[in-house]
Amino acid sequence: MEAYPSVSIRPHAKAHKCAQLAQMQLQLLGPAAVGMCCQKVTEAEALVAGGICDVFISNEVVAAPKITRMVALAAQGARVSVVVDALQPLEQLAAAAHAWGTSVDVLVEINAGQDRCGVDTPDEAAQLAQHISRLSSQTNGSVNFTGIQAYHGGLQHVRDPVQRAAAVQAVVDRAAAAVDAIGSQAGLECRIVTGGGSGTYRLEAGSGVFTEVQPGSFAFGDADYAKNEQLGGQQGEWQQSLWVMAQVMSVSAARACAIVDAGLKAVSLDSGPPVLLEQPNVAAGLVAPPPGTSSSSSSSGSTSSGSSSSSSGAGSQQTLKLPDVSFEGVEFENGGDEHGKLLWPQAIPQLPPSCRPLAPSCCCSPATATPRSTCTTASSR
Amino acid sequence: MEAYPSVSIRPHAKAHKCAQLAQMQLQLLGPAAVGMCCQKVTEAEALVAGGICDVFISNEVVAAPKITRMVALAAQGARVSVVVDALQPLEQLAAAAHAWGTSVDVLVEINAGQDRCGVDTPDEAAQLAQHISRLSSQTNGSVNFTGIQAYHGGLQHVRDPVQRAAAVQAVVDRAAAAVDAIGSQAGLECRIVTGGGSGTYRLEAGSGVFTEVQPGSFAFGDADYAKNEQLGGQQGEWQQSLWVMAQVMSVSAARACAIVDAGLKAVSLDSGPPVLLEQPNVAAGLVAPPPGTSSSSSSSGSTSSGSSSSSSGAGSQQTLKLPDVSFEGVEFENGGDEHGKLLWPQAIPQLPPSCRPLAPSCCCSPATATPRSTCTTASSR
Repeated sequence: MEAYPSVSIRPHAKAHKCAQLAQMQLQLLGPAAVGMCCQKVTEAEALVAGGICDVFISNEVVAAPKITRMVALAAQGARVSVVVDALQPLEQLAAAAHAWGTSVDVLVEINAGQDRCGVDTPDEAAQLAQHISRLSSQTNGSVNFTGIQAYHGGLQHVRDPVQRAAAVQAVVDRAAAAVDAIGSQAGLECRIVTGGGSGTYRLEAGSGVFTEVQPGSFAFGDADYAKNEQLGGQQGEWQQSLWVMAQVMSVSAARACAIVDAGLKAVSLDSGPPVLLEQPNVAAGLVAPPPGTSSSSSSSGSTSSGSSSSSSGAGSQQTLKLPDVSFEGVEFENGGDEHGKLLWPQAIPQLPPSCRPLAPSCCCSPATATPRSTCTTASSR
Repeated sequence: MEAYPSVSIRPHAKAHKCAQLAQMQLQLLGPAAVGMCCQKVTEAEALVAGGICDVFISNEVVAAPKITRMVALAAQGARVSVVVDALQPLEQLAAAAHAWGTSVDVLVEINAGQDRCGVDTPDEAAQLAQHISRLSSQTNGSVNFTGIQAYHGGLQHVRDPVQRAAAVQAVVDRAAAAVDAIGSQAGLECRIVTGGGSGTYRLEAGSGVFTEVQPGSFAFGDADYAKNEQLGGQQGEWQQSLWVMAQVMSVSAARACAIVDAGLKAVSLDSGPPVLLEQPNVAAGLVAPPPGTSSSSSSSGSTSSGSSSSSSGAGSQQTLKLPDVSFEGVEFENGGDEHGKLLWPQAIPQLPPSCRPLAPSCCCSPATATPRSTCTTASSR
């Protein structure tokens, strides 16, 4: 990313949901890192509670309880940004932020070609941006239009570098068209154009249109990302760093296979089967080749992650199945009774739905986290 | 099951992991129900802690810590049974049960054709049964041979009733061959022949070979089970009772689709996409058709399960993604920030790995839960 000094990095935290790891990422990435992304309000709460002060929710937040909790984070002093693609949740957000005497930055999400969320045309983007601007005037700056998001998850896994570049160029073109329409029709500047993931971030960063990239999977890598090819012909920009420790629970000599106890709460099959740590070309399904040693003794009792035992290491997949619960250390159930343990000892607990975080170690200055209607001393910002 | 009065029912609890629901199942099923199945030691602990006194772990348990915890349940007075398919874990189990002054019932698992766990031949089954018997003599009855398990998960989803019956007959033949070999070669009787699930249990029950069936998914049903055909031509012996409440978070009129916030921790894709509650013929993926009403307001804020809103109900899949954590009420994260809530208010909490349950409401008479080496007063049984 040194080649793109004007482009910011905002790592995505949805895979680890861990403020301590986020702090490590921001430190390692240096000044170019401007904050974290997350995908849900509860993830944002965990990050803010763990001292991350700039959190971008790269997804639509539409229900009133979620909007209130998101606004409460801003009222505590965190910089909170979020995407919108429709009027109604935007208006709910503006009203809530106004009631709490705070403000939230808002980006218009455009459909980057994945046909998931996002507005479909530059005109719609301009109209929505204009609406944000109008609401901001009406509500004392409770919502600030800051730009657009154009993220295409599917392109992260296009294997061929030439095809991948062409596909990202189509995303860049859509983003540029939205930026132009927002400028010409709404008279608004897109300070932020965000998108890109671990598979394509250099392409967005080099586009001249994007100002921010949001790679997340790079921290762990996975079997699928390792298959992406680079222009030089080599495979695997990212090295896989997280493995699921599974235990061999049954061996059949007749069928030359072993059964491990990693179930579908430990590994995903939606990006293909797991691979073995020391035999990455072997697709494991949930079945591993038999260990050289007899039966299951070679891996029994071990609970550490990152083991080099090829008979028990099933590859992690893109989406971790970390449940949203309180934990000390990031642990995950591997489908049997063993627990895998990641290397970061103090993950920030996810908070129960009724709990509002107080951000004890937040580096920002918390405002009074009370809605304006019940606290007349709260200051707007 | 009235047609098969000599066949017992042992519902499988792996989907709900909930002792209170297990109690309801046993009450509703009446005298034919002899206990519960589960798939892991932690599930057995939760059931015993919630008053279920007869628990069969229908899976191999191979690591020393798991074996110790399983034996501790038996030492508290619960009837615990488990399957084996190899010598080493069997010997570890016998030693542990002997040390704790208790006993565990053991069934030999045979490979029913699914090529997962289980011994591959009748001879192997007989040898293993004989080994259990020998170990029992040597260790004061710490392991009791009670029979075999022959379960084929894949057959639960064979659509055509004639094909399904033929496939189960092959399982029955394998089971019968194992029973015969164990009788003739080891001189042991298989008091229990267990297997069958929600898709095939009547076939095993009517076989004359099986003595016990273990259906589990029937409690919730799912989109895939509903596709099984019956001999009369009708579809769906089981009615789906559990739905995931998802929230519409983005609507595209241009693309005529809506995006819901149920992610891969809420629904599985391994048995096909979810279906909508009121439109079961619509495969939803993670995308629902647009609601008749505008945007997302029709479902916002709702947290109840079993809603009839077709715009927000994504069908549950066979394997629930309930995390193994403590909870009051069975809750599950639906991929957004909403929580679905099942109808049973007091699920038994899963216990942390280092915790040994004391079964406060267990209906059996707890023995002293201390290994013999440290407590000379413990009685063997």
